[in-house]
Amino acid sequence: MMASHKRLALAEVRDLALTVLTHFGLGERQAKAVAETMVAGERDGCTSHGIYRLLVCAHTIREGKVVVDAEPEVHDIAPALVRVDGKGGYAQIGFEEGRPILIDKAKRCGIAALAVNNSVHFAALWPEVETLAGDGLVAFAFTPSHAWVAPAGGTAPIFGTNPIAFGWPRPGEHPFVFDFATSAVARGEIELHRREGKPIPLGWGLDPQGQPTTDAGEALAGSMLTFGGHKGSALAAMVELIAGPLIGDLTSADSLAADDGAKASPFGGELIIAIDPAGFLGSAAAEHLARAEHLFEGITAQGARLPSQRRYEARTRSLQEGVLIPARLLDDIQALLDKPLSA
Amino acid sequence: MMASHKRLALAEVRDLALTVLTHFGLGERQAKAVAETMVAGERDGCTSHGIYRLLVCAHTIREGKVVVDAEPEVHDIAPALVRVDGKGGYAQIGFEEGRPILIDKAKRCGIAALAVNNSVHFAALWPEVETLAGDGLVAFAFTPSHAWVAPAGGTAPIFGTNPIAFGWPRPGEHPFVFDFATSAVARGEIELHRREGKPIPLGWGLDPQGQPTTDAGEALAGSMLTFGGHKGSALAAMVELIAGPLIGDLTSADSLAADDGAKASPFGGELIIAIDPAGFLGSAAAEHLARAEHLFEGITAQGARLPSQRRYEARTRSLQEGVLIPARLLDDIQALLDKPLSA
Repeated sequence: MMASHKRLALAEVRDLALTVLTHFGLGERQAKAVAETMVAGERDGCTSHGIYRLLVCAHTIREGKVVVDAEPEVHDIAPALVRVDGKGGYAQIGFEEGRPILIDKAKRCGIAALAVNNSVHFAALWPEVETLAGDGLVAFAFTPSHAWVAPAGGTAPIFGTNPIAFGWPRPGEHPFVFDFATSAVARGEIELHRREGKPIPLGWGLDPQGQPTTDAGEALAGSMLTFGGHKGSALAAMVELIAGPLIGDLTSADSLAADDGAKASPFGGELIIAIDPAGFLGSAAAEHLARAEHLFEGITAQGARLPSQRRYEARTRSLQEGVLIPARLLDDIQALLDKPLSA
Repeated sequence: MMASHKRLALAEVRDLALTVLTHFGLGERQAKAVAETMVAGERDGCTSHGIYRLLVCAHTIREGKVVVDAEPEVHDIAPALVRVDGKGGYAQIGFEEGRPILIDKAKRCGIAALAVNNSVHFAALWPEVETLAGDGLVAFAFTPSHAWVAPAGGTAPIFGTNPIAFGWPRPGEHPFVFDFATSAVARGEIELHRREGKPIPLGWGLDPQGQPTTDAGEALAGSMLTFGGHKGSALAAMVELIAGPLIGDLTSADSLAADDGAKASPFGGELIIAIDPAGFLGSAAAEHLARAEHLFEGITAQGARLPSQRRYEARTRSLQEGVLIPARLLDDIQALLDKPLSA
């Protein structure tokens, strides 16, 4: 009997990702940053942002939607703002380039913002806010995607899945981090239902005529819906605005139009805001961060989970035991290496 | 037959509010700012934040929970941060004091934040973000309240109703503004169901044993729930953190403890963040603000409403025709003036 899963050490996941990305011609710097993001996804049990994404990246690169040798360009535009032009590469290297400047500005000004422009987005936002929280900052991140989601009361897609991520530093603990799509569910979740021929719950999507549907295929052809009704819809609009026009970059509708049927990853901007607790609190920062711990204790003491608790538990396991990858996914990834490079 | 409503001009609403607030000993500056906020609520059809709140303010002042002659104190603590100590007065004057400094810092640094500390909160947050958007800035506002809301997966209150507000400048139009509680509904909505003996939908609250309930009284005695499941719960936690410990102020649990059964308005802090579009966009700001208009057109063209559309429509009517106030509410307010001042 063939095993349905294979156990890999994280170093093996990293090597595999690097091999595939390099094979497709992605430059060394981007390949490393993208591979590291996928390793983090696998490590934390977020398999939909793990090496499954190699298939997505390979497709996006093959479609010519990534500048494989991009070198991001920093523009120091205001005391508390920095803009990184990603030059058409993956957003990871834009963030990498902007991060030290964002930290420096947040520490000097109290609050600062980083715009990563002209970049390809395939990953979650929690790596960014977790990293910044690890640097002692409170962090927010936002990005549009492709226009797949209808506004509350509407009938047609205009928003992306538009995630919102937040990180809060916890001395001696993993940061408090959340990262969620403002759509009711991830697009991949609806896709999974379609492949399995399973109905979706009402509230996930509308058919192409704008009517509520339980048919996954109809919802994919029509519109997804936001979480939380008009409140989630308002947040989705906010993400479009602040990580689109505010930073001079694409909306989700622009991104989908630019994709022009290629089904590549979304292209555009990302807004990251960082606040230094010492800015407001000075020498009392430690005391007030300790007060925040009471809030977390109050949540977990009643049996509720903190947003990233599952992810951190998976991390502890993965660092010791490695991760289980579906054999079929490994076959699909191997097939990428065997295929000729042009589609 | 007695009329159930009486039509008042907005100037009459303002006079009535000022009379009551002054009668209860609120100093002139606070009385003016608080009255103006209530006029704005009535004008925009947000009656739950209109002069109904005179009853709430009168109670809060009588309970000794407002410093009636507070003079806010400004602390210019970092290039992009300003902190206003509200000195125990209403948050409106703290914002009033901090606003010009916030604007100046946002324009100089690109992004800036204002903490209003040690203040009493009875109103919505949209007046703040609408004002700042009117000043050409993108604005966010957050405040905790009293601990009434359970976390997702929990059984007991720990969060406040923790609103999130956002404002976006629209040249030649009212700003794009939203302001919503991260609780499933306003506490007043559950209170209304209780008074009318009507059941509440599942998803609004838990009974004191932490079980889902449709009994409004049980939910008020137990816990309210957040909107949008674990996503709304994550946002509620974020509001606690960034408008509580981050600015050295009370959490919703602290505020309720400080209230000590008085049933007065929440006490604590408010965080306001402002971004200058010209910071990221320079001379291209007008062009990109015009791109944002396409998003709004895309929403309204499919029959969906923008978040504040109803409010602005009510405003247009109220400015022409005045507002209808329930006769019974006017009686209750008149009774405040007839009663002796101590409870």
